[in-house]
Amino acid sequence: MSHPTVTDPIDAADTEVRVDKKVMEDVLLGHWADTRRHARELLKNEAFHKVEGMSKEDHRERVFKQMHLLAEDGAVHRAFPKEFGGSDAHGANIAAFEELVTADPSLQIKAGVQWGLFAAAVMHLGSEDHHRRFLPATMDLRAPGAFAMTEFGHGSDVASIGTTATYDPSTEEFILNTPFPAATKRYLGNAANDAKDAVVFAQLITNGVNHGVHCLYTNIRGEDGKPLAGITITDEGQKGGLNGVDNGCFSFDNIRVPRTNLLNRYGDVAADGTYSSPIDSPGRRFFTMLGTLVQGRVSLTGASVAASKLALIGAITYGNQRRQFNASSTIEEEVLLDYQLHQRRLLPRLATTFAANFAHENLLTKLDDVFSGKDASDENRQELETLAAAIKSVTTWHALDTLQEAREACGGAGFISENRLVSLRADLDVYVTFEGDNNVLLQLVAKRLLSDYAAEFKDADFGVLSRYVANQAQSTVMNRFGLRRAVQSVQDTGDERRSANWFKQPEVQRELLTERSRQMVIDVAGELRSASKLPAAKQAAIFNEHQFEIINAAKAHADLLLWESFTEALERVSDPGTKQIMTWLRDLYALTRIEDTLDWYLLNGRISSQRARTLTPYVNRLLERLRPHAQDIVDSFGYSPEHVRMEITSGAEQRRQDESMEYYRALRASPDGPVDEKLMQSRKR
Amino acid sequence: MSHPTVTDPIDAADTEVRVDKKVMEDVLLGHWADTRRHARELLKNEAFHKVEGMSKEDHRERVFKQMHLLAEDGAVHRAFPKEFGGSDAHGANIAAFEELVTADPSLQIKAGVQWGLFAAAVMHLGSEDHHRRFLPATMDLRAPGAFAMTEFGHGSDVASIGTTATYDPSTEEFILNTPFPAATKRYLGNAANDAKDAVVFAQLITNGVNHGVHCLYTNIRGEDGKPLAGITITDEGQKGGLNGVDNGCFSFDNIRVPRTNLLNRYGDVAADGTYSSPIDSPGRRFFTMLGTLVQGRVSLTGASVAASKLALIGAITYGNQRRQFNASSTIEEEVLLDYQLHQRRLLPRLATTFAANFAHENLLTKLDDVFSGKDASDENRQELETLAAAIKSVTTWHALDTLQEAREACGGAGFISENRLVSLRADLDVYVTFEGDNNVLLQLVAKRLLSDYAAEFKDADFGVLSRYVANQAQSTVMNRFGLRRAVQSVQDTGDERRSANWFKQPEVQRELLTERSRQMVIDVAGELRSASKLPAAKQAAIFNEHQFEIINAAKAHADLLLWESFTEALERVSDPGTKQIMTWLRDLYALTRIEDTLDWYLLNGRISSQRARTLTPYVNRLLERLRPHAQDIVDSFGYSPEHVRMEITSGAEQRRQDESMEYYRALRASPDGPVDEKLMQSRKR
Repeated sequence: MSHPTVTDPIDAADTEVRVDKKVMEDVLLGHWADTRRHARELLKNEAFHKVEGMSKEDHRERVFKQMHLLAEDGAVHRAFPKEFGGSDAHGANIAAFEELVTADPSLQIKAGVQWGLFAAAVMHLGSEDHHRRFLPATMDLRAPGAFAMTEFGHGSDVASIGTTATYDPSTEEFILNTPFPAATKRYLGNAANDAKDAVVFAQLITNGVNHGVHCLYTNIRGEDGKPLAGITITDEGQKGGLNGVDNGCFSFDNIRVPRTNLLNRYGDVAADGTYSSPIDSPGRRFFTMLGTLVQGRVSLTGASVAASKLALIGAITYGNQRRQFNASSTIEEEVLLDYQLHQRRLLPRLATTFAANFAHENLLTKLDDVFSGKDASDENRQELETLAAAIKSVTTWHALDTLQEAREACGGAGFISENRLVSLRADLDVYVTFEGDNNVLLQLVAKRLLSDYAAEFKDADFGVLSRYVANQAQSTVMNRFGLRRAVQSVQDTGDERRSANWFKQPEVQRELLTERSRQMVIDVAGELRSASKLPAAKQAAIFNEHQFEIINAAKAHADLLLWESFTEALERVSDPGTKQIMTWLRDLYALTRIEDTLDWYLLNGRISSQRARTLTPYVNRLLERLRPHAQDIVDSFGYSPEHVRMEITSGAEQRRQDESMEYYRALRASPDGPVDEKLMQSRKR
Repeated sequence: MSHPTVTDPIDAADTEVRVDKKVMEDVLLGHWADTRRHARELLKNEAFHKVEGMSKEDHRERVFKQMHLLAEDGAVHRAFPKEFGGSDAHGANIAAFEELVTADPSLQIKAGVQWGLFAAAVMHLGSEDHHRRFLPATMDLRAPGAFAMTEFGHGSDVASIGTTATYDPSTEEFILNTPFPAATKRYLGNAANDAKDAVVFAQLITNGVNHGVHCLYTNIRGEDGKPLAGITITDEGQKGGLNGVDNGCFSFDNIRVPRTNLLNRYGDVAADGTYSSPIDSPGRRFFTMLGTLVQGRVSLTGASVAASKLALIGAITYGNQRRQFNASSTIEEEVLLDYQLHQRRLLPRLATTFAANFAHENLLTKLDDVFSGKDASDENRQELETLAAAIKSVTTWHALDTLQEAREACGGAGFISENRLVSLRADLDVYVTFEGDNNVLLQLVAKRLLSDYAAEFKDADFGVLSRYVANQAQSTVMNRFGLRRAVQSVQDTGDERRSANWFKQPEVQRELLTERSRQMVIDVAGELRSASKLPAAKQAAIFNEHQFEIINAAKAHADLLLWESFTEALERVSDPGTKQIMTWLRDLYALTRIEDTLDWYLLNGRISSQRARTLTPYVNRLLERLRPHAQDIVDSFGYSPEHVRMEITSGAEQRRQDESMEYYRALRASPDGPVDEKLMQSRKR
């Protein structure tokens, strides 16, 4: 299609604004800025840096040494109780922890297994006795450990794992068993080489009753480093990335675990085998236990934001120095970032990275509220879990997408390991499926959205309910058949500038993003409601027919969460130039999300065709406005050369460009320089 | 949005059709089926198979040994002249060659460097003398060689490379020089370790005139394996993939090359320094020389199709065995591929793989026509290059996308190297930027589309031209303001079934895909026409403002090319069941492409809102139709376990599922089996 004349042109005021890098850095670093700065300082030490091309054996050894350095520094103990040398600081802990990804994602994950999962399970699922007995050694790494939850047969569906822990009152022990091969524990970090102990998730059976999944602390390897009798350990071998982590598998053949090693905060077994729990409902008990481990998802989100920043520092710095093809001049080639396509490839991803940064900051604050006890209400816990599920999904995918686009935008240089883009991408690949597969997490989000929606008329009598639905239907019809659209079209007539202005209003962006998420939920709810009286299998079939829409509704909700976080953060920016540039980034985030889903807005009459046609030109205008500030923006991420460590950001490319320009300048000035055959031919004519 | 009632329901006839695997395999293998089968047979030998996790040193050594096996077998000589032991078979050569990717992409690329670039440059750019002197040793690997074209400073823009070859008539030699660091040759396969010789691309300067890029054959390493004096070689080191290829850099300090080593088919220098060429125009000469190397792009296309097939064999086989979550039954979990989302993730990619297979087959036929001399006209050569550029771009991206989705669809198992998905993805990553960066290639395609369009009224006088443009404008206006849409809406009223039927008509699919590509070109041409009288810098600026649209127009054209190839291939299918199922796949390809760009169709009035709302439900219906045949389809790719080599396709997952089901069946039957706490609680109530 051809576009309407460009409106909202770039004026002098636009070109005069500047990023105050200090201001931008502070806003991005957020509440735990000091902690982050401290962590980054520590990670300048090259002892922490990944060495590309190492064998997995050497890499594992290196990472294990790095773990000891972290433990010595106390860098990984912030979340633990003060009495054990921690500082009860949950948000700060993750803020520091996620920076590890800049050193080596294997280190982030291996440290995450040790302190964020293994030791954290002791802390959150155990009682004071367990803290005293187990925490010190897990914290200082005398007891490296595995977190044995996932099995061959069950990853995302933890409730269905097959490992059993059957209580034997005669010896006051649990008997751990792997009853069939698919119940073998797998993908366990620390398992193949280093773990001495483990927390093992198993179906707890006592007095003939299965009380569901519980967690036991158990010894895995003897002092000689060999697996205990009855425990079989295998190595997962080479992986697509994270080869500094020694993933392995456990299977158990009648392993006896003392009764007092059951991490019993949410469920206990008395000496005689009597089961007790502070939470009656087995379902709620299970989700409460799992909910204490939400920090894994939160830290993957933060690491994804950090990796996206590294990718953009690389590609934008290179794009500002690298030249290829001459279009507007016969003697000078274009800088890559002056190409519209290059801006299209990198700047919307930069905008999304900002949105993700602020969404993660909010998530971290909520986590801190819940774990510090500031607001540990059930509702707030559930909200934390829903937010973490939504934001973990979109940010981990965003990191892979950004790393890949950055690598392609750097051409062959992007493929060389010394520029780290391929290496980071390979390591972060698994972030989209572990700690909850993204597509499964998005379904949890959608279920929550649906039940929130249903709760609106939970207590309404039939009359009210039917009125509610009727109102809803009317509004859908009105949108679908274009009445609202018609009104917009009339307003737009003859004033395209107003159309572009319309898109840049935050209230409009909020309405558009909210309505998409909301209406999609309403539509799915309408389809599912008819199924509620049917047998389970039929219900499941109808749910399945709408699974794709359900996922899309959850994604739309996540888009909105990111937008709200970004918009809220703008309030915290004092410097007007920085605020203006960040507002363009926020607009770019909103409008590229809307552009990507424009068919929905058109089909549902939320945006008229006339307005819609102003969208892409306006996005292009935002790219043009932001382009001069791109370098300042990535420079404000606050990373030093020791964190970035790419040849393409070292200044080498600029030197190469300068040298070759100087060579050609001298050649043009020299009377002996060769004449171009083309030029000679045209002179002859 | 809520969907209209499902139409075009699945009936008995739909469920009765079956894939005839032999028929489908033959159609997919195409014209060079026997050659492919022969190549696959050879590659069953595990000596050719990639070993995951090798150091790059060991991997390089292994691949170099494999190269000798290939040379001994003659497997890589088909394209060479009969007199040198080849068979002048260009299409067959690539058909066999691209199968190497199933063994190890490093082997494919290293073999591609040796025989498809280095030796091929001798063959295509050299004269008979060069063939006699150089071909035998390059063919049998006595002379491993590098193809020294790309430099630090210039990849996609080959015409601007900086290396110089200055003729010295006093000794009848060329002097090769790297005049500044950015002119260092880089990314060269074979360079770091193995190359004895090289073909070097350089600016040819004689008698004070630069005649542009030419190619010289030169010795690089002495008999002792050390670089010759004046040649500096460095190693690119670790890469994101393809670590079995020894990429390196060359720089030249006054290297003397005999005059007769200039590969002189398209440009020669006499003893006295006089330059001559059969092609007068330096521009056309350059593109003719480069055009002889198009087989690189064609073979990357074929390899991408093969890798996509392996990915889908892995993910679909696993998706048919793996179970997770129970929705419709309390005792049996769902098979992954029964989930709509899983179908959505894999089946459209399966459909695109078919389309890519047939587009590649057509490309190969055209290449064979050009290189065999059957139709070597300039027009056909140009068409080959445009097709190769378009199809290489979309198929290499498709392979990465498919490998990634397959890896995610297999969860953690997808991340383990033994299942090869991460490994193949890492190796194929660089395919999207080498042999022509995809985004640069798409711009070449767009330029061709624009000039074809402009040629329509090249000879028209002003009156005709303006009428043409006016007609065009009218048609755009009519579409934009919804007149055509209104007509459709009337036709659709009350007959949604007709809407779905509309989308499945091939003429409708062709019209929709054609019109999108065509109209986008027309729109861009309209915008650019106004710039044609402006100075170069302004013209470039206006072109740049539309770069994103231009790329999208080229992608739309590629979509159409794939669709046409698929549709044409359906004519070659005799078995009605196979044809029906392939027709659903073709429809799925078309309709998911249209779904992805639906906003364009709505904005341009090509599809009414009412029809558009039937699109997604119809796509879902196609998924449901295809789902039962998914395994048969991937089984018909004709690959053996020796080619696939994934744990997830070995039957191990099915065994694990069977064992665990048997365990639970026995447990349910046993009076001693533990009772579920949930069940016990509900009994108590």
